Amino acid sequence: MEPLNIGIAGLGTVGAATVMVLHEHADLLSSRCGRPIRVAAVSARNRDRDRGVKLSEIRWYDDPVDLARDPAVDVVVELIGGSDGPAREVVEAAISAGKHVVTANKAMMALHGSALARRADAAGVTLAYEAAVAGGIPAIKGIREGLAANVFSSVVGILNGTSNFILSEMRETGRDFGDVLAEAQQLGYAEADPTFDVEGIDAAHKLALLAAIAFNVDVDFDSLHIEGIRQVSALDIAYADELGFRIKLLAIARRGDGGLELRVAPCMVPQERPIAKVEGVFNAVQATGDHVGQVMMVGQGAGGGPTASAVVADIVDIARGLRVPAFGFPADALEPATVLPISARRGEYYVRLMVVDRPGVIADITAIMRDQSVSVESFLQRGRSPGDAVPLIIVTHDTTEAAMSRVLAAVGDLDHVVESPKMIRIERMVV
Amino acid sequence: MEPLNIGIAGLGTVGAATVMVLHEHADLLSSRCGRPIRVAAVSARNRDRDRGVKLSEIRWYDDPVDLARDPAVDVVVELIGGSDGPAREVVEAAISAGKHVVTANKAMMALHGSALARRADAAGVTLAYEAAVAGGIPAIKGIREGLAANVFSSVVGILNGTSNFILSEMRETGRDFGDVLAEAQQLGYAEADPTFDVEGIDAAHKLALLAAIAFNVDVDFDSLHIEGIRQVSALDIAYADELGFRIKLLAIARRGDGGLELRVAPCMVPQERPIAKVEGVFNAVQATGDHVGQVMMVGQGAGGGPTASAVVADIVDIARGLRVPAFGFPADALEPATVLPISARRGEYYVRLMVVDRPGVIADITAIMRDQSVSVESFLQRGRSPGDAVPLIIVTHDTTEAAMSRVLAAVGDLDHVVESPKMIRIERMVV
Repeated sequence: MEPLNIGIAGLGTVGAATVMVLHEHADLLSSRCGRPIRVAAVSARNRDRDRGVKLSEIRWYDDPVDLARDPAVDVVVELIGGSDGPAREVVEAAISAGKHVVTANKAMMALHGSALARRADAAGVTLAYEAAVAGGIPAIKGIREGLAANVFSSVVGILNGTSNFILSEMRETGRDFGDVLAEAQQLGYAEADPTFDVEGIDAAHKLALLAAIAFNVDVDFDSLHIEGIRQVSALDIAYADELGFRIKLLAIARRGDGGLELRVAPCMVPQERPIAKVEGVFNAVQATGDHVGQVMMVGQGAGGGPTASAVVADIVDIARGLRVPAFGFPADALEPATVLPISARRGEYYVRLMVVDRPGVIADITAIMRDQSVSVESFLQRGRSPGDAVPLIIVTHDTTEAAMSRVLAAVGDLDHVVESPKMIRIERMVV
Repeated sequence: MEPLNIGIAGLGTVGAATVMVLHEHADLLSSRCGRPIRVAAVSARNRDRDRGVKLSEIRWYDDPVDLARDPAVDVVVELIGGSDGPAREVVEAAISAGKHVVTANKAMMALHGSALARRADAAGVTLAYEAAVAGGIPAIKGIREGLAANVFSSVVGILNGTSNFILSEMRETGRDFGDVLAEAQQLGYAEADPTFDVEGIDAAHKLALLAAIAFNVDVDFDSLHIEGIRQVSALDIAYADELGFRIKLLAIARRGDGGLELRVAPCMVPQERPIAKVEGVFNAVQATGDHVGQVMMVGQGAGGGPTASAVVADIVDIARGLRVPAFGFPADALEPATVLPISARRGEYYVRLMVVDRPGVIADITAIMRDQSVSVESFLQRGRSPGDAVPLIIVTHDTTEAAMSRVLAAVGDLDHVVESPKMIRIERMVV
């Protein structure tokens, strides 16, 4: 049968790994697809760099947009990165030229995914992006196809391996954020500029995509509530342990009253749950459907091999003739998502205050909580140090974020509360 | 667009749930598929039974083979069960009539899957069976499509919810097998005849299918090594806990030297691993691929809702025009699996002996182990009771099953060893 001709734009770690997988498993993939897959063209900035794969027999393009227009290319694989600029130009050129697109670009898909999906639908081509979410985990396929029978109530994930590695390492060693970040950078688990990873932005990109698929909505990325892990201290991790929790950077999309909750933030998760055991660079995606119940998928969320595995899976789908709309729904029919404000969140809260150890402090704090109808599940105070600041831990019962915000503002104003209060949401609705 | 017409043979729990999902989510599924899905015909033994779903406007067949031949039916959904008899007749009739088939029948697929896949390939129709393995977890799709870029080294699963429920309950309550089985039967988690579940046969059916997909082989079901959970005692569960393990009924398919390891047996798993936390009626499937690394999927392995979710996912695939060969490979090209004998297994072992507490016992046992080159990682003996039988726990270092069998035979022959030795394999190669 005719081979499927692939053009790969971008030959960084993932691009080189993709070429490698396609070469190494050429025969197996040909049997699995019913037709050969051939790398027909590549494009990158530097032609001379040694990438550990043989490129000499593959057509080279200096300009990736030219590659996207090459009539000999059936599928354009965009691995350049960045939400706009060349990546987007390549994808738009490919769709305009009637070619299928495979991309690992979460930023581009989160910001421009529905616009690109409309173009792809109109052109009758596939826009595939399994590698953009949770690396090697077949999360997009799992939700969009494997669980397509369900109306989803939530999709929750650990979607950033760098943050999860840092939190795991902080817990295991008792060290602080800055210290572990520096180590992660040395090990290559964190980039020189770690902003997207540790500030929750990368996880939010992926969450926007998962929410679009699960709820068949068009998500405005700016509507997400995003907190990173910079504020998580070794002290909070130690208290979490004592209280029976693990702190995880969770990306949460949940159907609420009149809209969707969409947020990325450090959360406390009961430590006996499987998701609490997802450590290091592993990612997890958990979907809850009305018929299937909870399904969780765990795997490596980054790296050349796992990401190339997802890129090639998308190529295999195209070679096999499988075509599903990008968000599992006609792009024109996606309704804009109604996103609930963070103040509408209901649940339990962990609060850490640094209070001067003096009589009456707890009475003042509990009076404020009573006035906001926030009830206490437990207080935790270790050691005594009269006159000095000591940590006071409060775990609340179910309440609203709005009430909690008022409690934290009022408590923060108390004379004997030093430092601003630290709050971490407790999430029990996970596997 | 033209509706896809479904005929459902078998209206037990899963059949009724499937009708319900297709009715309840008709509009959503129509948008997701790009065409309506319509239940055109049903068949069951008793027309008068109330199944909680409206069937009056659906054509009724007393004989499911007639349903399979109805020209108005595009897809035949086989939910009758049993490896042969009516189920197989319905599937063969449907394929002969050029209709796509969706089935939840693991016994039939494990025993006749490759023969049916050859017929389906020849007829150019889909043979889909997501619901046959791990209930609602999209395990077939995940491995066959989502991880299609990989050569797999292993697929490991907790594939029987009844057994997992019983083991979880035994651990939590300290009760014995028979006691918990009776409770599970009362709760409806175990059938009146629990043989297939507790003897490991049901898990083995599913393992045979996962192995066929992952390794693209034709598996002879009789070649599997199968042990159930009847022999797991409360004592072993307590010792596992003390040693840092959980006992799980694992289904293991692993590429070994010159063939595949294929077995179902109770195993000890390090308790910090996510798979060790898969409790109760949940199932798990873990695949290890050369590029993706380890991927695990967790979800409910049985029940009307989760199973119907998988059945409808297969129907959605067909409605969307997605077609993949049953084992992700042309059925004609599947090589017969070379299955390694259990004696070839390498790994660590847990052994429990009941020994008369008398000087010299350990010297005799260690001499036997030394003669077979089996070295001891740890001994555990609690309490003393001179002259009575007490449990002696041995954990070995890496060795072969062949050597362990010789050790167990010789140790079992010792005068002061009462009861036959109990052995449980330790499996560390799991997420």
